[in-house]
Amino acid sequence: MAILLAMGNFAFGQTTKAKEDFKPSSTNQQGKEFPQVNSEGRVRAQISAPEANKVQLDIGGVKYDMVKDDKGVWTGESAPQDVGFHYYQLNIDGASVPDPSSLYFYGASRWGSGIEIPSDDQDFFALKNVPHGVLREVQYFSKTSDKVRHAYIYTPPGYDKDNSKRYPVLYLQHGMGENETGWGSQGHTNLIMDNLIAEGKALPFIVVMENSSVKFERPREPRPAGGPMGGFDFAADFKNVLLNDLIPYVEANYRVIADPQHRAMAGLSMGGMQTRLITLGNPEVFSQVGMFSGGSISKEDIEKTPAFKQNVKLLFISYGSRELENPRGGGLGGDPKVNTQALKDAGMNTHFYVSPGTAHEWHSWRRSLYQFAQLAFKN
Amino acid sequence: MAILLAMGNFAFGQTTKAKEDFKPSSTNQQGKEFPQVNSEGRVRAQISAPEANKVQLDIGGVKYDMVKDDKGVWTGESAPQDVGFHYYQLNIDGASVPDPSSLYFYGASRWGSGIEIPSDDQDFFALKNVPHGVLREVQYFSKTSDKVRHAYIYTPPGYDKDNSKRYPVLYLQHGMGENETGWGSQGHTNLIMDNLIAEGKALPFIVVMENSSVKFERPREPRPAGGPMGGFDFAADFKNVLLNDLIPYVEANYRVIADPQHRAMAGLSMGGMQTRLITLGNPEVFSQVGMFSGGSISKEDIEKTPAFKQNVKLLFISYGSRELENPRGGGLGGDPKVNTQALKDAGMNTHFYVSPGTAHEWHSWRRSLYQFAQLAFKN
Repeated sequence: MAILLAMGNFAFGQTTKAKEDFKPSSTNQQGKEFPQVNSEGRVRAQISAPEANKVQLDIGGVKYDMVKDDKGVWTGESAPQDVGFHYYQLNIDGASVPDPSSLYFYGASRWGSGIEIPSDDQDFFALKNVPHGVLREVQYFSKTSDKVRHAYIYTPPGYDKDNSKRYPVLYLQHGMGENETGWGSQGHTNLIMDNLIAEGKALPFIVVMENSSVKFERPREPRPAGGPMGGFDFAADFKNVLLNDLIPYVEANYRVIADPQHRAMAGLSMGGMQTRLITLGNPEVFSQVGMFSGGSISKEDIEKTPAFKQNVKLLFISYGSRELENPRGGGLGGDPKVNTQALKDAGMNTHFYVSPGTAHEWHSWRRSLYQFAQLAFKN
Repeated sequence: MAILLAMGNFAFGQTTKAKEDFKPSSTNQQGKEFPQVNSEGRVRAQISAPEANKVQLDIGGVKYDMVKDDKGVWTGESAPQDVGFHYYQLNIDGASVPDPSSLYFYGASRWGSGIEIPSDDQDFFALKNVPHGVLREVQYFSKTSDKVRHAYIYTPPGYDKDNSKRYPVLYLQHGMGENETGWGSQGHTNLIMDNLIAEGKALPFIVVMENSSVKFERPREPRPAGGPMGGFDFAADFKNVLLNDLIPYVEANYRVIADPQHRAMAGLSMGGMQTRLITLGNPEVFSQVGMFSGGSISKEDIEKTPAFKQNVKLLFISYGSRELENPRGGGLGGDPKVNTQALKDAGMNTHFYVSPGTAHEWHSWRRSLYQFAQLAFKN
């Protein structure tokens, strides 16, 4: 028995060759020793499952076998992961479940486990003893949805102190399979903004985070074929919530500067595509536009919609570097770098940012917000 | 094989005798059909675990065996549960994990599954199209903890509209193994307050919800033996955070009426015991006191602390009826009904409330808040 166990551990060590400098992750539940991350970015998970036959760590689309010790505790680790935040789960005898030791985040259309791989630049969203804004959970009635909807609103430090001051607003969208909690949780929007404002790098502004997956909420008319994503018009329903319900609610209830010069829209992935469609379709509403891993805007687009070029004072396009390495990455609507350069040449204030060493994941989007927020409302 | 399965299903049906009117729970993740609850209050859970040998639903301290179908999906149900909210988990071949279909709540010292058993009176915390307050997530620096701490603050409808108006404040505490998220999540504090205010049944006031498990945060000096809970002085550390850091932060940053007449403290279970110790120890700070399933205050207490009787304008004590049936329930510091009557006789404005058909659980505490809020700040 002892020999078999020793062999098991040996084989386990040989397979993964992990550097033994694992530390508990910052996304663990309070007091939990696992999951851990080492300096190579490997994730080591652990769970007690004495009667199980097979337990796996499922992260980044790969399942890694875990190994049982003589107390029935399973331990196993992944290949090195990119820096930043990743969704993951455990698989116990065929059941895919959250890791009971991690905090939970909404993504991949579920509440489940997430883990943070430390990065050299993580200080930009660290919790510091600086003036803090407030993340507000609000309910408001939406005529479009015919129900009370739920959103988060970040108000910057000092918002409650000086009642004469009004602020610009950013409407900031999540990706497909995510919801209105993402930017305020794994996205760390409030800490990114607090830190930028404390350093004087960003103007203080309000950030509104709503759920843009409106199409899932109730049965809809069939959509015609064609258009982006094969006739799946994922912007139309949210456009109505945003323009007819959410913006009027925010402008009636928060001290915002209610004009296009002080109104921004940005989003990640599907939220970036929604930003593209909604701002191109309503160029009189927004002057600041950000698309994070969500396509780009071409010279042909602004030729078709000259008001967009005229009204938009900041256009920000970003991707993770690993998305651009992938031949499919960044391809939606043409090469984003080429498109961006063409708009620059055409005289638009256009910025292209590439997040180093990250893929279609939250660390790319946190960094994108960090960059975008420093540019916003300054033109 | 078919015969064995049929027998399995038959035995399963015989054992539980569940009424077949199950419906998805209100605490399910979006789009999930399970877990379900029937009109008897039974919980039926379901999970795919094709290779598992044994799967159980673990709720209310009892583990119920689930049964596998020919597709590897396990289904099983509990005995009838009391109305209201219960923490639960699944057990898969010895691993205790959250149900991937439920929403997650913090309790029992972990983030995990919870389920709502419908109650006749659940309308008092239903989401309605009434004016809504805001639940704010705030960070503030605490000298006591030497770190940035995290709290939730409910501001009532209209708080942001009329900048001349000031409000009373309730400091509202969770129980042991819970944290600052409980009252705003499974407790539905914001909806209880919104609905009461809309009906004119409660005065609008601010509610502050912090984490009172301060003792777990860093190593402490050993405590002397004796005192409530055998020398475990669970109020001392939180008292310092509350009196020296949190109240000053709230009074500097929110439009509150900063006097004892407009300052309340209440809490559930451990939070009720903390309320007892902190308000008895500092009778000049609070005028409104609520203890929900957390002991009571005796005639001897106020004889020792005459300032408590003099300053406290509302004392509210409550329990779930099932706690009082249990000989251990409500026993901390004497019979709460007898104690309450003695204080009434002594001339204190004292209320005793019993939540019908509920135990030491959230539905008792939601109802207690609903009652307490209607009495608070009216004397």
